[in-house]
Amino acid sequence: MNTEALKKLIANMEKLCLKQLIITAPMSIKYLTGRFIYPGERLVALKVDTDGTCRLIANRLFAQKPLEGAELIEYDDTDDTGKLLASVCKPGIVGVDKDMHARFLLPLMDARADISAQLGSIAIDKTRMVKTEKELEKMRKSSKANDAALSGAIGRIVKGVSENGLADIYRQEGLKQHAQGESFDSLICFGANAAEPHHQTGDDKLCDDQAVILDVGLNMDGYCSDMTRTVFFGKPDDEFIKVYDMVKRANEAGRAAVKPGVPLKDVDAAARRVIEDTGYGKYFIHRTGHSIGIEVHEYPDVSAMSGEVCERGMTFSVEPGIYLPGKFGVRIEDLVAVSEDGCETLNSLDRSLKTV
Amino acid sequence: MNTEALKKLIANMEKLCLKQLIITAPMSIKYLTGRFIYPGERLVALKVDTDGTCRLIANRLFAQKPLEGAELIEYDDTDDTGKLLASVCKPGIVGVDKDMHARFLLPLMDARADISAQLGSIAIDKTRMVKTEKELEKMRKSSKANDAALSGAIGRIVKGVSENGLADIYRQEGLKQHAQGESFDSLICFGANAAEPHHQTGDDKLCDDQAVILDVGLNMDGYCSDMTRTVFFGKPDDEFIKVYDMVKRANEAGRAAVKPGVPLKDVDAAARRVIEDTGYGKYFIHRTGHSIGIEVHEYPDVSAMSGEVCERGMTFSVEPGIYLPGKFGVRIEDLVAVSEDGCETLNSLDRSLKTV
Repeated sequence: MNTEALKKLIANMEKLCLKQLIITAPMSIKYLTGRFIYPGERLVALKVDTDGTCRLIANRLFAQKPLEGAELIEYDDTDDTGKLLASVCKPGIVGVDKDMHARFLLPLMDARADISAQLGSIAIDKTRMVKTEKELEKMRKSSKANDAALSGAIGRIVKGVSENGLADIYRQEGLKQHAQGESFDSLICFGANAAEPHHQTGDDKLCDDQAVILDVGLNMDGYCSDMTRTVFFGKPDDEFIKVYDMVKRANEAGRAAVKPGVPLKDVDAAARRVIEDTGYGKYFIHRTGHSIGIEVHEYPDVSAMSGEVCERGMTFSVEPGIYLPGKFGVRIEDLVAVSEDGCETLNSLDRSLKTV
Repeated sequence: MNTEALKKLIANMEKLCLKQLIITAPMSIKYLTGRFIYPGERLVALKVDTDGTCRLIANRLFAQKPLEGAELIEYDDTDDTGKLLASVCKPGIVGVDKDMHARFLLPLMDARADISAQLGSIAIDKTRMVKTEKELEKMRKSSKANDAALSGAIGRIVKGVSENGLADIYRQEGLKQHAQGESFDSLICFGANAAEPHHQTGDDKLCDDQAVILDVGLNMDGYCSDMTRTVFFGKPDDEFIKVYDMVKRANEAGRAAVKPGVPLKDVDAAARRVIEDTGYGKYFIHRTGHSIGIEVHEYPDVSAMSGEVCERGMTFSVEPGIYLPGKFGVRIEDLVAVSEDGCETLNSLDRSLKTV
């Protein structure tokens, strides 16, 4: 067990008056135990009690070696996992993580009338939120590789390449950086497709005078990078140049607002204000960013809804964008790590308007 | 909406006396609507009632176009998704799919004391279980590409390559086949690592006289392939040759047992018997196979626990294996599609013992 992380987790559980918590999210289990166990459709759970008792429940097929600091409970495919989970719960409230699947949660609730399931993953989310120096080192390495891979991919943009083709090129560049893989499926959008922030990378081919959004990330040593650059293939018109400049300034303003003690909603507001001040506010239709670490989307968001405050060691994206339906979109995204008196930007790939 | 699939789904719901079902698994939603909406941490749900009413609930950010045959219900990040789900439920039992996350299920249950949540995904699982001719065509194409990619990767095995390095080579071969990606992270195991069926592909380097298990698959047009071959680097000893032959015969026996009307547990038994008859039964420590289609693991399993019977159009793996702790492992996996009077094997890559 990662004893430092466990200590933080138990303190967070106590703040929530949660005496017991069932964690099923594989990445949270990895974070606490050092082991990534891919569960497939099977149950893998870590039960943590505030008295320090930890139990790792896993199918015998996953052949777990003994784990220091935790009892290992193995089961077979013929066992009833609902009853198994019920057998390790004390009466009363049982925290469960937000990712627990109905296939495990409903049978647990059916098996024990004396327990009440309650969402409790905020305790582990807040534990993972603040990165250690060792984790930050990996985050830096991942973003540095992403800078190089994206730079390589941008250098290989040619007329007629498809969005999927360009995603393949980025994948090859990522392999050159010895990444374990991508931290998410690349979002590559040409022209008007780039005006839909959740457009699915497809077979459309690149034509003259189109904006290209590349939103890409790698996984290095288990840590994720995530960056977006928007480049222009051909000669951009005045509106594109104006919008690009606005988004670039919003990205800078968002990053400049980051320092310990600043609420994340103020970081969101700082980026948003630049865009709103020019009347384009209604085209910035998403949150400013999200936390990131061993997963590409972690708690908390950088949005007007966020209740969290910047703390040294937090890592998140700053990614304002403007999307003009039917025309084009621009997004510029960087990862930052909150430092002692501001933030460190983990990406260094040039942000000035690039035409290719 | 895929009206044929919806008709089958409603018939399956009626058999279960389920009048309403909430589906949250993105691939099931894609199967029924034709749209893959990656939900991230947000709610995307399809509510189906047996009177044919369908509602697609999605965050406004996912910008869905109107969907024929379904009402589109959009919400914002500021909306309460538990209340939103509650607002479309009738009193009584509500089927939910096994993949529904606690973050949506618990708030739904809290919002409505007059509903009772019940696992109901078997209705959609059974719908997806039988493939149409159009789907089978894509399954064939995906497995054909996998044959070519794995053959290419095996041809590039050299001394000193790492498991991760060989996984990269396979990935490159997959790109050559124009795959959209891999259907799962390749499992590449050298030597004694191959004796752990869930070993995680790592940095161990290939040495002389080691068995190599390659368990790999591609995604083509949204359909998955999945195949395992075991090759030997160097000169195999008598035990390896004997074990290899046994696994090969078990694979053949499993596939030969497949035809409409045969219980899947009999397919499992047919493969298992070959291995048990020689006294190696205790080293075949997993099910014989799993169904596959738009996802790499679908319902049902090919195991002693399965209650399903072969039906024309079902596609699943036959993958017996023998794992000798500390020594080596052998697994030979092929996909089959149940045909009118037997089965079609979707993989054609040679199964005879190959030394490299």
